[in-house]
Amino acid sequence: MCQLLGMNANVPTDICFSFTGFRQRGGRTDHHADGWGIGFFEDAGCRIFIDTEASVNSPIAALVSAYPIRSQHVIAHIRKATQGHVRLQNTHPFQREVGGRYWLFAHNGDLKDFAARPGSVRPVGDTDSEEAFCHLLNAVLAVCPDGRPSQEQLLAVVTEVAREVSRHGTFNFLLSNGEWLLAHCSTQLAWITRQAPFSVAHLSDEDVSMDFSEHAAAGDRVAVIATAPLTDNEAWTIIAPQTLLLFREGELIASAGTASTPESLSAAPSVATV
Amino acid sequence: MCQLLGMNANVPTDICFSFTGFRQRGGRTDHHADGWGIGFFEDAGCRIFIDTEASVNSPIAALVSAYPIRSQHVIAHIRKATQGHVRLQNTHPFQREVGGRYWLFAHNGDLKDFAARPGSVRPVGDTDSEEAFCHLLNAVLAVCPDGRPSQEQLLAVVTEVAREVSRHGTFNFLLSNGEWLLAHCSTQLAWITRQAPFSVAHLSDEDVSMDFSEHAAAGDRVAVIATAPLTDNEAWTIIAPQTLLLFREGELIASAGTASTPESLSAAPSVATV
Repeated sequence: MCQLLGMNANVPTDICFSFTGFRQRGGRTDHHADGWGIGFFEDAGCRIFIDTEASVNSPIAALVSAYPIRSQHVIAHIRKATQGHVRLQNTHPFQREVGGRYWLFAHNGDLKDFAARPGSVRPVGDTDSEEAFCHLLNAVLAVCPDGRPSQEQLLAVVTEVAREVSRHGTFNFLLSNGEWLLAHCSTQLAWITRQAPFSVAHLSDEDVSMDFSEHAAAGDRVAVIATAPLTDNEAWTIIAPQTLLLFREGELIASAGTASTPESLSAAPSVATV
Repeated sequence: MCQLLGMNANVPTDICFSFTGFRQRGGRTDHHADGWGIGFFEDAGCRIFIDTEASVNSPIAALVSAYPIRSQHVIAHIRKATQGHVRLQNTHPFQREVGGRYWLFAHNGDLKDFAARPGSVRPVGDTDSEEAFCHLLNAVLAVCPDGRPSQEQLLAVVTEVAREVSRHGTFNFLLSNGEWLLAHCSTQLAWITRQAPFSVAHLSDEDVSMDFSEHAAAGDRVAVIATAPLTDNEAWTIIAPQTLLLFREGELIASAGTASTPESLSAAPSVATV
């Protein structure tokens, strides 16, 4: 099992604070030390830092903690290898171009006996996670040969794939194409929205606080999604198992159930608040 | 016009020395300051650092200069924007997955009235360079639908594309899929092989020397390719215009002419030594 971190915002926002805490889970506050990665969308471009070092020791992770890259869509991952060797090609997030846009994907879980749908998008490494990502993108291409699904098409395809792949095991994942960020909770995932009035947040994994009122403007809205809450003084929402959430502009705008018993898509969030 | 740097080696080798000099061309010893990037193959994986800052000022470039990433295939680029805005999506090297392998590409030049062959690989940004890369990969897929060309097929396809695209303007480029590195000289490109007996090299762009005999083992062989020689005390080979070179394991193993007058492929290098 691994650690996931996602961010979706309505204005380019740096993730230094959240990443500072998250990074500790790669070798210090948690034992996931088989590499880590983070991908940032900036306009249509995409910048990925990946490393096979433990994130707590990685000079690249130190740079990312200190260098404020502003993005509206971020996906980060700390790896505990279950399938596939500790190699760069097995390090999340994975990236592909489909339909003239980059897509990023990171997975937490372990899939048994899973093989991707054949298609033009193929895995490079040997993880179940990259297989699932390729499967998902080939499913998008099967529905939209131009690779440019509408929001409704994307939600429908990803819901169906999440339901199908979940039969093979745990399938918590984050997916973004620079327009939407989708978060699927199979077993464990939480999220929070930060917006005005902003307050002081304190990390769970390190004794660091941040007063967002000093850094954010009145209209800023940022959703943060993580395997476990990153702060110990904010009200995170624990996502119900087998739920897919779709974020845009820092806002949760749709969700769907992905339990094997077919459920219809719902525009209303089906999340439980703690 | 831009600056290119490539490396192809028979053992994983760090490029810190060459990159230290190369980096100076992004804002200090040359005026290319519209971003830079470097991509490293490590096993089948691929790690890319890109930035829209001038490389001489970029904290990420400082990290790359100091952090010895060992790779057999490296492609780096410093951008002087001729087409396309200064945006991350227009920053080289570009990456795609084709046939279950990553491919990296960087271009120096300016192509007029060029549009890519339609195909499954599509540009994300708005540069002539990314159009040409997509065109090239779609041409590979047209010949080898599984995206796994043999060396002969790859050399033939890239020669044909280089010849065709060169009609639109300057098309110096570097291309690698982690097995071969191809270097096309349209107007300006030079290369060198470092192997035993190793000696001391001194950078052209900064007063830094490196005694390779202290770092390299007897059987190591490293080819370095650059827009202009990176050192001032080694014998670089200036590549003849309209020549495609194919490197593997640090060795030049094939070349082909790409002038518009059709020429047959040749297994013998057609390079001129200075």
